[in-house]
Amino acid sequence: MSTDGSFYSIIDYTVDGTKTQHELVEAFVELQERWVRFYPGYHSARIFVSLDGSRVYNIVRWESEADYRHFEATSDTAGRVAAIRGALDGLSGKAEPRMSGKPHYKVVREVGPGPRRA
Amino acid sequence: MSTDGSFYSIIDYTVDGTKTQHELVEAFVELQERWVRFYPGYHSARIFVSLDGSRVYNIVRWESEADYRHFEATSDTAGRVAAIRGALDGLSGKAEPRMSGKPHYKVVREVGPGPRRA
Repeated sequence: MSTDGSFYSIIDYTVDGTKTQHELVEAFVELQERWVRFYPGYHSARIFVSLDGSRVYNIVRWESEADYRHFEATSDTAGRVAAIRGALDGLSGKAEPRMSGKPHYKVVREVGPGPRRA
Repeated sequence: MSTDGSFYSIIDYTVDGTKTQHELVEAFVELQERWVRFYPGYHSARIFVSLDGSRVYNIVRWESEADYRHFEATSDTAGRVAAIRGALDGLSGKAEPRMSGKPHYKVVREVGPGPRRA
């Protein structure tokens, strides 16, 4: 059961303030543009920042799990992983991953506006 | 700078398996329907589950931060917090929050499909 059929990868970091937060956002944009966005079935990467400057999420959406698996199987994983490591090493502050397990997701429920349930 | 002007609350839990994961999803749906979805500016709650059964995200979107602040100021926070606690207590397994700081977010960048950046 998936409400939109899409496959999501959720990348999740804590950071030590707004400067590192901004740098990590720009690093995620560059990583998408250099390593991900040109594969078939890539839909979008939306980058969320917490208003308190402590956290960054990157939610990458693929049209289907099959598209993601094709990306995984055919892309240069070693190059991409090295680029991610280089981007993290280049930050002026600290960023710590908060992922647990494989960051592979689907949307199972969506609740829109409506009357209060009694 | 926000790409869509929206305000997001990101709720983030680890769980001890697919049974608890499913129960927590249903609890989040019920909490939205009883306590949140009828306030002005409520846009949606999208509930993500990890394919490995270990994690649940609930991403609640408001049209604007002002709409969220109005909800915060005018809703029954004590009742809602008690309902959340009751829902968590009613799970058959364990669920642990992974939030850090206030879970208030905006989207600052979105990367769509495109050519590889050189």
